Amino acid sequence: MVVFTRQIVTKSSARRQLIDLTSEVTSVVHEAGVREGICMVSLPHATAALVVNEHETGLLNDMLARIEALFPASGAYKHNAIDDNADSHVAAAFLGHGRTFPIIDGELIRGTWQNIFLVELDGPRSRREVIVQIIGDQ
Amino acid sequence: MVVFTRQIVTKSSARRQLIDLTSEVTSVVHEAGVREGICMVSLPHATAALVVNEHETGLLNDMLARIEALFPASGAYKHNAIDDNADSHVAAAFLGHGRTFPIIDGELIRGTWQNIFLVELDGPRSRREVIVQIIGDQ
Amino acid sequence: MVVFTRQIVTKSSARRQLIDLTSEVTSVVHEAGVREGICMVSLPHATAALVVNEHETGLLNDMLARIEALFPASGAYKHNAIDDNADSHVAAAFLGHGRTFPIIDGELIRGTWQNIFLVELDGPRSRREVIVQIIGDQ
Repeated sequence: MVVFTRQIVTKSSARRQLIDLTSEVTSVVHEAGVREGICMVSLPHATAALVVNEHETGLLNDMLARIEALFPASGAYKHNAIDDNADSHVAAAFLGHGRTFPIIDGELIRGTWQNIFLVELDGPRSRREVIVQIIGDQ
Repeated sequence: MVVFTRQIVTKSSARRQLIDLTSEVTSVVHEAGVREGICMVSLPHATAALVVNEHETGLLNDMLARIEALFPASGAYKHNAIDDNADSHVAAAFLGHGRTFPIIDGELIRGTWQNIFLVELDGPRSRREVIVQIIGDQ
Repeated sequence: MVVFTRQIVTKSSARRQLIDLTSEVTSVVHEAGVREGICMVSLPHATAALVVNEHETGLLNDMLARIEALFPASGAYKHNAIDDNADSHVAAAFLGHGRTFPIIDGELIRGTWQNIFLVELDGPRSRREVIVQIIGDQ
């Protein structure tokens, strides 16, 4: 049994944006060489989240529109007295900063339409970190 | 330390439906024989989610009603130009495709009112897969 | 590789409340002595949730206000025919009962603004349990 940890670094170019990390995460799984185990993808950020779904342009727009519907950028937020990103924090807290996946036969197990996205909620940012940690049997 | 993986197969009979998997997941935990560890329950699907709560008929209705309130089936979704299930995808992404639990003294640790549900968001489907993966000490 | 499990016990003083568990969870990580691994924080409760975000008084208010916006306490909930906390259950199911974190070099990896909160959704309660479970290499 081994623990294998890697950091992925990315950046964002808009206030809200979905950034596909699937190929980077898959590469880490292959590099780890774990045959069976758990892969955790986790963000050390309070204004970004991690979600899993289909990479289709229309759907990416729909997800961003739903974030605005549920966590509107403008509103009577108290946190905005000291910063201007309360909506980003609340959305990040509720959507969650990470997701976990099984690894079977050395492959990350995800559905055909399950891509892995960092959800930028307070960009643009020149640096966003993603930690991929794998525990399992080689 | 061992890794133990099993697949549960289920199906759904309505567009949106809560399917209780508690007894199936508990059986996998007992079969694994792990005394202390982590149990991950994960779906390889982009239009279904996993949640944990009480199995009470009224509450199941309330959860489905709240899904419609937060992720309405009808709306100006761009993804619906190519398919008719944008709401299913967005709800699945935001609710999450998995949950994790501790195992202590060989038992899945959950509260009295914590049952494990697959949330069907785009059914009916003849086949939905659930992966249960356990890492721990036997 | 070891599994290390501890229970934290806390209480709440309002119907909805955010209780910061960061120092307690950090203490468990240090006690475990795991150099590299996964830390799971999990609640065995159906009317409380776990979220991660900044501990700023205004923001705590904003998170509670958004819970009321998305999961209003009053409404035509069917579960309220037998109890008076349907909103608490639905919010707990959707926000999630746990979160996971990486441990690297013996430290819980979280961002500067990522504190760990139990979200009380049906308090006040004299006892709320939190399970911290760590798997990794010492």
